[in-house]
Amino acid sequence: MTEDEARRRFAAAPVARLATIDHGTGDPHLVPICFAVDDDTIYSAVDQKPKTTPDLKRLRNIAAHPHVTLLVDHYDDDWVKVWWVRVDGTARVVDDDARGRELLAAKYHQYRGAANLLGRMVVVDSVAWRFWSYTEFG
Amino acid sequence: MTEDEARRRFAAAPVARLATIDHGTGDPHLVPICFAVDDDTIYSAVDQKPKTTPDLKRLRNIAAHPHVTLLVDHYDDDWVKVWWVRVDGTARVVDDDARGRELLAAKYHQYRGAANLLGRMVVVDSVAWRFWSYTEFG
Repeated sequence: MTEDEARRRFAAAPVARLATIDHGTGDPHLVPICFAVDDDTIYSAVDQKPKTTPDLKRLRNIAAHPHVTLLVDHYDDDWVKVWWVRVDGTARVVDDDARGRELLAAKYHQYRGAANLLGRMVVVDSVAWRFWSYTEFG
Repeated sequence: MTEDEARRRFAAAPVARLATIDHGTGDPHLVPICFAVDDDTIYSAVDQKPKTTPDLKRLRNIAAHPHVTLLVDHYDDDWVKVWWVRVDGTARVVDDDARGRELLAAKYHQYRGAANLLGRMVVVDSVAWRFWSYTEFG
């Protein structure tokens, strides 16, 4: 897998997992996110709907420790087909982002015509792309 | 979703994501794992095959900071069906574990008759189970 191919596979996945550092305990925190990629920038929406406390934790975590990591993985009962792509990066929370809004609506039909769902976003600037496939390294 | 149902869904998933703290930088680290659950204990194998450095990083991370978190998530184009289950716990690395070996071989046919694949394991003792489903909280 080349880095270009890894980036393509990552961008095409419907869900990634975002790992942050708990701002209180220093332990890892993990949540699945919908996201859209623009070159070295990864956008994810913070829904405007009422949320439980744990879900907003990622925002407080990012404010305290902006280094995050994102993972997309592909499982197959045939382990030869298993692969993953990980992005290490620096995250920030923004009130809105026109480009992010456009890309998220293009990728997820669920966001279209539901502009109220898109507002505050987590924006990750990638620092390193890492990838693994069983075929190459297993 | 009850905790029993969350535990059932977690245990049935073929892959979870393990988040640890990088022993050098303090940043989050993330890797997909195959695993088997026995009540409050989660077993995952550290394959005996040659590995690249990043893959063994989780072991050094756990030695330095045993608090980890594991995530199983279910995505569906119909967001009403989306859910996730997260386990926060304490991890340790063991040279072998008969119960873990048995459970992993029972869950994954790929491990059967390939005893050489099962040796050193990461064992996580769960501290808290957290779960979310769109239906209930969306």
